[in-house]
Amino acid sequence: MANRIFDASQRATASFMPITISGLRRLDPPHVTAQSDIHDWLARAHATADAGADPTRLRRALDRFGCSPDRIAQRFHALEDFTHSDWARMRIFDATQAPAGRRLGARMAFFAQVAQEAFDAFYATEAVAPAHIIHVTCTGYVAPSAAQRLVAAKGWTETVVTHAYHMGCYAAFPAIRQAAGFVAAEGPATRADVVHTELCTLHLNPTLRDPEQLVIQSLFADGFARYSVTGELSCAPRFELLAMAEEVLPDSAEAMTWQCAEWGFHMTLARDVPAQIAQALPKFIAGLARRGGWTEAEARRAVYAIHPGGPKIIEQAQAALELTDAQTAASRRVLRARGNMSSATLPHVWADILEDEAVPDGALVLSLAFGPGLTLCGNLMVKRAS
Amino acid sequence: MANRIFDASQRATASFMPITISGLRRLDPPHVTAQSDIHDWLARAHATADAGADPTRLRRALDRFGCSPDRIAQRFHALEDFTHSDWARMRIFDATQAPAGRRLGARMAFFAQVAQEAFDAFYATEAVAPAHIIHVTCTGYVAPSAAQRLVAAKGWTETVVTHAYHMGCYAAFPAIRQAAGFVAAEGPATRADVVHTELCTLHLNPTLRDPEQLVIQSLFADGFARYSVTGELSCAPRFELLAMAEEVLPDSAEAMTWQCAEWGFHMTLARDVPAQIAQALPKFIAGLARRGGWTEAEARRAVYAIHPGGPKIIEQAQAALELTDAQTAASRRVLRARGNMSSATLPHVWADILEDEAVPDGALVLSLAFGPGLTLCGNLMVKRAS
Repeated sequence: MANRIFDASQRATASFMPITISGLRRLDPPHVTAQSDIHDWLARAHATADAGADPTRLRRALDRFGCSPDRIAQRFHALEDFTHSDWARMRIFDATQAPAGRRLGARMAFFAQVAQEAFDAFYATEAVAPAHIIHVTCTGYVAPSAAQRLVAAKGWTETVVTHAYHMGCYAAFPAIRQAAGFVAAEGPATRADVVHTELCTLHLNPTLRDPEQLVIQSLFADGFARYSVTGELSCAPRFELLAMAEEVLPDSAEAMTWQCAEWGFHMTLARDVPAQIAQALPKFIAGLARRGGWTEAEARRAVYAIHPGGPKIIEQAQAALELTDAQTAASRRVLRARGNMSSATLPHVWADILEDEAVPDGALVLSLAFGPGLTLCGNLMVKRAS
Repeated sequence: MANRIFDASQRATASFMPITISGLRRLDPPHVTAQSDIHDWLARAHATADAGADPTRLRRALDRFGCSPDRIAQRFHALEDFTHSDWARMRIFDATQAPAGRRLGARMAFFAQVAQEAFDAFYATEAVAPAHIIHVTCTGYVAPSAAQRLVAAKGWTETVVTHAYHMGCYAAFPAIRQAAGFVAAEGPATRADVVHTELCTLHLNPTLRDPEQLVIQSLFADGFARYSVTGELSCAPRFELLAMAEEVLPDSAEAMTWQCAEWGFHMTLARDVPAQIAQALPKFIAGLARRGGWTEAEARRAVYAIHPGGPKIIEQAQAALELTDAQTAASRRVLRARGNMSSATLPHVWADILEDEAVPDGALVLSLAFGPGLTLCGNLMVKRAS
């Protein structure tokens, strides 16, 4: 289990440098739709894409396999398509002309436009150029990227852009690992910004309707987040990073896959992913706690930021680690309000915890996320309210 | 201009840590074809994909716009397709059935297979698990990645995988920047391996035949490379990193683009890219030299590792910086022997310089590469033969 950045043993040495995460900002995609309305839309899209499909039966299948509105009440999305059934007016999902949706090139062009709008909004009033911008996404690959176009337009010739692409829902962790490395190498005043732009709903394919795909279609949403990683202790509220850990679980490569295809990016997700992850968690948490200089018992009493991939992973992680509902409340709140926004989700959970007055200054926060590999990532942080 | 990792001023502080690059290994893709034979094949593929196209005229256009065999003598490639014209036997480029080539999903499946073979070969006899593996590519995005499957198969639960994807020909620089950050944060004994797997030839589209696309089709090849970044000074031969710099040139976003499309990854390349880059080089080199603690005059006398995107960029960089043929010989040799292997190219140039007995111990080496943005990257290193 690794990584070795911020092993507790480093704190005894002169070279230990604190790493803080602050300035968490979220941006709402332009449209928000109730979960039951999205399920209605999906049933109509599936039935239109395939004249043989029965919309009533599809709607029942979405109720049966999909995530219910009491767990995901609504989802935000950049595409207007999901708000109406005027197929001729669809940008991507004209189910009458393109049953699987328009092809990858059209989707990437839309991604480029929306990601640019997100970057421009995040930096509209920014006066100080960051030393680094790390752009995180697994839902759109366009070069030059929105980050590169932003720094060119701003004249920020000193700002270095890094792409952290195609890792998946856990990608906030490798992004923070990279940012922490830049701060360690360049000094504590270095500010490395991390910007997530995830357009998961862009990769729908209405011709895929086995139960696994219905689960996926009922979970994912779009989301944008930005935060700063520095060695400064003056910004508040903030998290102080104590330890990170990451590992690939053995014999789990086929459990979750994410691959570029001609119509979009194609996900597969085995039913037992939550169980596989939950089973690995107790040992993983013990190692992470040790690395951070805490006991396993202390780590189990932390506030938890579990990537809410779906309701099941929160439930099963909670059971495996014997946590209370209160400890996992932030993940549940973000899932209910927004769905699974891939890598942009955990920053939303972190913002919720920073804003939550019930979580006191000095509280230990344990974060977890998961993705293809299966990759299991976590960190230990302390909340600082001031 | 940045990045601030390894600014010379750091060397005066106690926290300065040397960063070394060593263990450079290359792996030849299974097939190698003479440039004139590839041009013959391209003319046949274009003419077969479009019955109206005249193969003789296409062959002449490739002679006119494409890179001549005296600059690129041969190119390596993973696909057998380019070695014959039995269209029915093609894995991707059956020009009779799929004029643009098979779709993206089929290409990504081939990428996954070949990248895995490269990783397995690079680590076949490796006894010691690295702390990190950074997988660099801009030509195939599959999760789990070959790097993740390797560490799972090896049981290397302590090895952390990072994807450095979709940056382009210059991606060795962000990969080394990340690796150097991990070493700075985790200590000098940390070994961060960087592995490049580039299958540029996979993204051919025989229905595109304007002069710009013929230029691209005549330049790119496949390539694989591996090396290690550590803080150890005991490995030899090696490079010691003195300074890095990176910037996005203003008003250049449309000059080079790289975007996922339904048939493959689509590149555009304006004619004036070499001129735009060459024009920016003198100021860029001056900043890089200053950052490394050298004068501009000293930097201009260095051995140069210029990413050989094509013959023109080497010529124009050489002219802009008033370099001799001898200073740029390694880039020319790699281009002639292998073509442009995107991000895998510069590691081949570095290996050539380490092996070249005409470049003495202690020689200053200045490396440059370019990509979408336009992004301009460089570093200053010292060669250590022992």
